[in-house]
Amino acid sequence: MKEFTPEYLDQIRDIIDRRNDEEARAALADLHPADIAELYQDLDLSEAEYLYKLLEDETAAEVLMELDDDDRLKLLDDMPAEMIAKQIDHLDTDDAVDLIQQLDEEDRDDILARIDDVEQAGDIIDLLKYDEDTAGGLMGTEMLVVNENLSMPECIKELRTQAEDMDEIYYVYVVDNDYKLRGVLPLKKLITHPSVSKIKHVMEVDPACVKADTPIDEVAHDFEKYDVVAMPVVDSIGRLLGRITVDDVMDEVRESSERDYQLASGLSSDVDADDSILAQTKARIPWLLIGIASGILASIILSTFEAQLEAVTALALFIPIIGGTGGNVGVQASAIVVQGLANGSLDVREFSRQLGKEVLVGLLNASIISSVILVYNLIMLPSQLAVTLSVAVSLFAVVMFATLLGTIVPLTLEKLHINPALATGPFIQISNDIVGLLIYVGIATWFLKIFGL
Amino acid sequence: MKEFTPEYLDQIRDIIDRRNDEEARAALADLHPADIAELYQDLDLSEAEYLYKLLEDETAAEVLMELDDDDRLKLLDDMPAEMIAKQIDHLDTDDAVDLIQQLDEEDRDDILARIDDVEQAGDIIDLLKYDEDTAGGLMGTEMLVVNENLSMPECIKELRTQAEDMDEIYYVYVVDNDYKLRGVLPLKKLITHPSVSKIKHVMEVDPACVKADTPIDEVAHDFEKYDVVAMPVVDSIGRLLGRITVDDVMDEVRESSERDYQLASGLSSDVDADDSILAQTKARIPWLLIGIASGILASIILSTFEAQLEAVTALALFIPIIGGTGGNVGVQASAIVVQGLANGSLDVREFSRQLGKEVLVGLLNASIISSVILVYNLIMLPSQLAVTLSVAVSLFAVVMFATLLGTIVPLTLEKLHINPALATGPFIQISNDIVGLLIYVGIATWFLKIFGL
Repeated sequence: MKEFTPEYLDQIRDIIDRRNDEEARAALADLHPADIAELYQDLDLSEAEYLYKLLEDETAAEVLMELDDDDRLKLLDDMPAEMIAKQIDHLDTDDAVDLIQQLDEEDRDDILARIDDVEQAGDIIDLLKYDEDTAGGLMGTEMLVVNENLSMPECIKELRTQAEDMDEIYYVYVVDNDYKLRGVLPLKKLITHPSVSKIKHVMEVDPACVKADTPIDEVAHDFEKYDVVAMPVVDSIGRLLGRITVDDVMDEVRESSERDYQLASGLSSDVDADDSILAQTKARIPWLLIGIASGILASIILSTFEAQLEAVTALALFIPIIGGTGGNVGVQASAIVVQGLANGSLDVREFSRQLGKEVLVGLLNASIISSVILVYNLIMLPSQLAVTLSVAVSLFAVVMFATLLGTIVPLTLEKLHINPALATGPFIQISNDIVGLLIYVGIATWFLKIFGL
Repeated sequence: MKEFTPEYLDQIRDIIDRRNDEEARAALADLHPADIAELYQDLDLSEAEYLYKLLEDETAAEVLMELDDDDRLKLLDDMPAEMIAKQIDHLDTDDAVDLIQQLDEEDRDDILARIDDVEQAGDIIDLLKYDEDTAGGLMGTEMLVVNENLSMPECIKELRTQAEDMDEIYYVYVVDNDYKLRGVLPLKKLITHPSVSKIKHVMEVDPACVKADTPIDEVAHDFEKYDVVAMPVVDSIGRLLGRITVDDVMDEVRESSERDYQLASGLSSDVDADDSILAQTKARIPWLLIGIASGILASIILSTFEAQLEAVTALALFIPIIGGTGGNVGVQASAIVVQGLANGSLDVREFSRQLGKEVLVGLLNASIISSVILVYNLIMLPSQLAVTLSVAVSLFAVVMFATLLGTIVPLTLEKLHINPALATGPFIQISNDIVGLLIYVGIATWFLKIFGL
């Protein structure tokens, strides 16, 4: 990880202030595009723009893709359509599609029309048709493709032409005359097998591949399972459409787990530590207001209980433990389901098996917890038997209920194709708070009657 | 993603029951090692063991690495040391090290001594010395290495010897006479540059690399930044030690975000949806008991407040809203810090800047929330002005406190090199519950005095 020292940044700022193009170019030449992108984050927009204009087109395009979404949009905002089109021409098609999807709808056609390379523009237009959350939305068209009937030397000759302006190439995809995917040839084999045999006898047949409409999380799962660094994408009858690279999949894995974590933490929209105060508040206030609404609901429930609270004030002491325990239990149960669904160790078809298991885990937890509070209260509040029994029985019921809700809700959301992570965190916390209170109020009222209080 | 139908599984079980080696071998021949590993999860241990013994050594080793940790250990438990040693001989050194680290300490030396290939055993022993959480702990020694002074044809000849029994190769690492890393040669260049020039004129100089003691999260960050599929590892003076592959990094990214999520959800140890009921309870009960202890503490705090509760029962109605809001605010603030630290958008050196920002976000949230509850209570409980003011002022204080604690605790843990995710979820929830109640009790007591109640 490159660290920019304050001294280095001062030097760069000094060069920019003096508008010394030559020195600036020399400083940038030493840096990887990803490092230039990182440097921009330490500079003002006008400083970054000055440096950006000095870059060669290809480097400029790479830097653009390495920037944060926000920084990229700022830079693009001030850029003429002509220049954006030129950058896109230098990008891999999958990156180009990502970039175009960030632009305003009305700007897109204008920019696409300005791309010099018509083939590149056509590929991009085709790729834009795929759903963002599928293999098709993640793929690019830059790949080495050869016919299965070529000989190895013919193949190498063909590859030299194709590979000219491709950056990172790890596999050659082998197709038949109908462009159906037949096999994969790791580049390594081109070096270790300099034979005159036909490609189809050297290639690996039946390669791991995905259909264009495969959901992204399944694509990620396949990459992890087969340990590949790129995977071909085919249409419904097996014709080769494009390829997905591992860096895009890794971004996806990180982003989707970040999204789950944020949902579970009560953040309603994608927000980062370096976002503005307003953006931060906007992401947080919805769940907080829902929390307040549920707190008000809780106060209404408790107000129906005011007579009992007046008669036995000790009942009020255990309001926090009821809600807190329900929340903790529900978050645990739902986190296990959400994570199991994400990493494939749980399948939504195992609904009833998982539920049965959770009932047993719930019974075990509920017994331990109720026993602890029962013993504590018997010793510490010997005169309050009605309260003691109300609390112990309520906790047992709350733990069981929270366990079931924490299992059922995310599994149901998954069945409905809604992100199950939405069910963890505030949602489960809040619903358990409310239901927990209802349980407590009901059970305590009953015990008070029995004890004639 | 391969799905095994019940019919297919019945067929396989039937073959196993009849102990028909030939048919079983034929069925396995069609499957990728990763698919065989998945099949095992649907079979009994004895069935899986029968199939496992039919595999060729190399496939068997690959299947072993694709299994879940639990399933792998079960299979290894019944395997003679001789056989384990043979499997390890077929694994890449990084996988071999992972496997050996799972074995009992006393078995390790015995197995290492039985490995036929002494060089492989030596490499493994060297690798075992590195800390698991560093680049050294993740690297393997299988790589193509050539001297910078070779010509391209010499290099290709050299590679044919080296690459013979390596699976996946994407780069050639170029070293000087002291074995210091000088450059990287993507395999693609060997095909597109069939020149007679020396390697050092074709290679990419100054390649992205990591030192052996670089922490794993920085390694992952570098992979994502530079979009590479493998990265060389060097010692403190730049000599090449090994390489890290992207599949191991991707596992790391997923595992570390799963770990964060679990810690944030109050799961004290690594647990999966398909783990046993006892394992599940063991992972959950610690935080639940801590929650119960804090609930008891809350009841003690409230008992000092019993006189006021008896005088003004309406005060009890707002106990849930105080704790709930503190918890929600704390979880949000800490999740943003934890995630910012994990994805690099926040640096622990920006402690005071982040804190200043959170103060402003907190003030905004606190103002909105207090106003909402103030207006609600003024309208709904017009006769309870003391309660209304107590709740509104307490909520303001609780939101500010929870925001600060949610920011300070994870940043402090990060400084102390403790996983900051530990600070989110139950910890922040519980401490905010307690402090929230103390604030509420204090402020309400003061208002009651002012109003002479």
